[in-house]
Amino acid sequence: LGSIKSISFIGSGNVATHLSQALHNQGFIIEQVFSRNIDHALELAEKVDALAVDNIANINSSSDLYILAVKDDAIESTLRLINDKNIFIVHTSGSIGIDIFKETGFSDYGIFYPLQTFSKNKSVDFLEIPICVEASYEEKLLIDIANQLSNLVYQVSSEQRKKLHLAAVFACNFSNYMYHVAEDICLQNDVNFNILKPLIKETAQKISLNHPHEVQTGPAVRGDQKIIESHLDQLSENKNYQGIYRLITDNILKAKK
Amino acid sequence: LGSIKSISFIGSGNVATHLSQALHNQGFIIEQVFSRNIDHALELAEKVDALAVDNIANINSSSDLYILAVKDDAIESTLRLINDKNIFIVHTSGSIGIDIFKETGFSDYGIFYPLQTFSKNKSVDFLEIPICVEASYEEKLLIDIANQLSNLVYQVSSEQRKKLHLAAVFACNFSNYMYHVAEDICLQNDVNFNILKPLIKETAQKISLNHPHEVQTGPAVRGDQKIIESHLDQLSENKNYQGIYRLITDNILKAKK
Repeated sequence: LGSIKSISFIGSGNVATHLSQALHNQGFIIEQVFSRNIDHALELAEKVDALAVDNIANINSSSDLYILAVKDDAIESTLRLINDKNIFIVHTSGSIGIDIFKETGFSDYGIFYPLQTFSKNKSVDFLEIPICVEASYEEKLLIDIANQLSNLVYQVSSEQRKKLHLAAVFACNFSNYMYHVAEDICLQNDVNFNILKPLIKETAQKISLNHPHEVQTGPAVRGDQKIIESHLDQLSENKNYQGIYRLITDNILKAKK
Repeated sequence: LGSIKSISFIGSGNVATHLSQALHNQGFIIEQVFSRNIDHALELAEKVDALAVDNIANINSSSDLYILAVKDDAIESTLRLINDKNIFIVHTSGSIGIDIFKETGFSDYGIFYPLQTFSKNKSVDFLEIPICVEASYEEKLLIDIANQLSNLVYQVSSEQRKKLHLAAVFACNFSNYMYHVAEDICLQNDVNFNILKPLIKETAQKISLNHPHEVQTGPAVRGDQKIIESHLDQLSENKNYQGIYRLITDNILKAKK
């Protein structure tokens, strides 16, 4: 099979931008960048010494690997538009299973999923970004590439990735919502939310070396009913927040037993 | 009033240990360390060149400031045991109001509340720990001391501190519980929870420069009903987690409108 030397990108968003630049910096040849919007294709192509393409029929067949980095709901339709079904192609999505490739006629395919939030203007250090790989049969090639970018490479099946995505909703989306509620409570009471930021940071750092349940703190895990009642009372004018407080507290109390 | 030069500690736990050492390092004279357990008193006293005391009647009256750093539910009873009501005394609790001092006969008092979780064996950098101060009338003295320890000094009333404590339950205790649920989902599905840790860290770091609602991501804020349904379905065997998923998702959907 040899190793991967040349790569083309289908898509020019945040993931394509950060990933293609990281691969380019590692010495991979980025051949083509496709986007339906030629300006977007050109903008990224220029950064990685690639050719910009805005017609999917013009994508060459010569690259060793094609990385499809488009929105989840555009993956299937884009795959159907690719004529050459013999290319080695991967997508970068956390929530779309590997079967999508078989269903759209490909035989040599995989997932190359960098698990991090990317912002257009914020540079990232790929070394600390977990990359989850899976492949129909050339998994070693993907692992080789991933190892050149990151210290955190994992083989993750589609079924596991589905669960990882679900877990990430709790760990990241929901914890961010907890930050929002906290900020809202501060704003409503003329308290500076900045006071809480070091504690938020420390809470997130603590779990790098401990299981979360080992470092759980607060009135619920202490079983401090007096404080819990006082908090529920303080939230009596916001039934939404009160409901969240009650449900999570009940679950922490249950988990203690 | 002059400035504070000598300080005595009542209590020898994590807060007393870290705070007395930080003050000692800044050149304050730590006169006495009281603990009902003489071994605990001796252990800390030795670190800060202080005298160990295990009988509260033996606490001197000569220190410029007394810092009461005991568990919340021991604050009132300890205050009642102190004979000299003319000392300048502060407690270090986030949830006990300033009125406790008046109720126990003191006239010169305040709060000196470092808002961070302390672990016995983990050293801390006080410069990045917010310190919330409040005082009956010598607030400036407390601010001066706090400024010598930390870059993050805030004047916070008891009423505000109550709200801050409530907000911290959401931002820290509840987000930690979200990490726990995420780890539990990973464990149950043979997925390595470490894969999520960089994303958790980045989620917490993102809010240092952005409002949480501005960086909210995930299926709920995208209104992605297909993924939400799939997640609820995957949680059908754990009604507790399913209930949390549904409630927080509903709240994020509501907040969008």
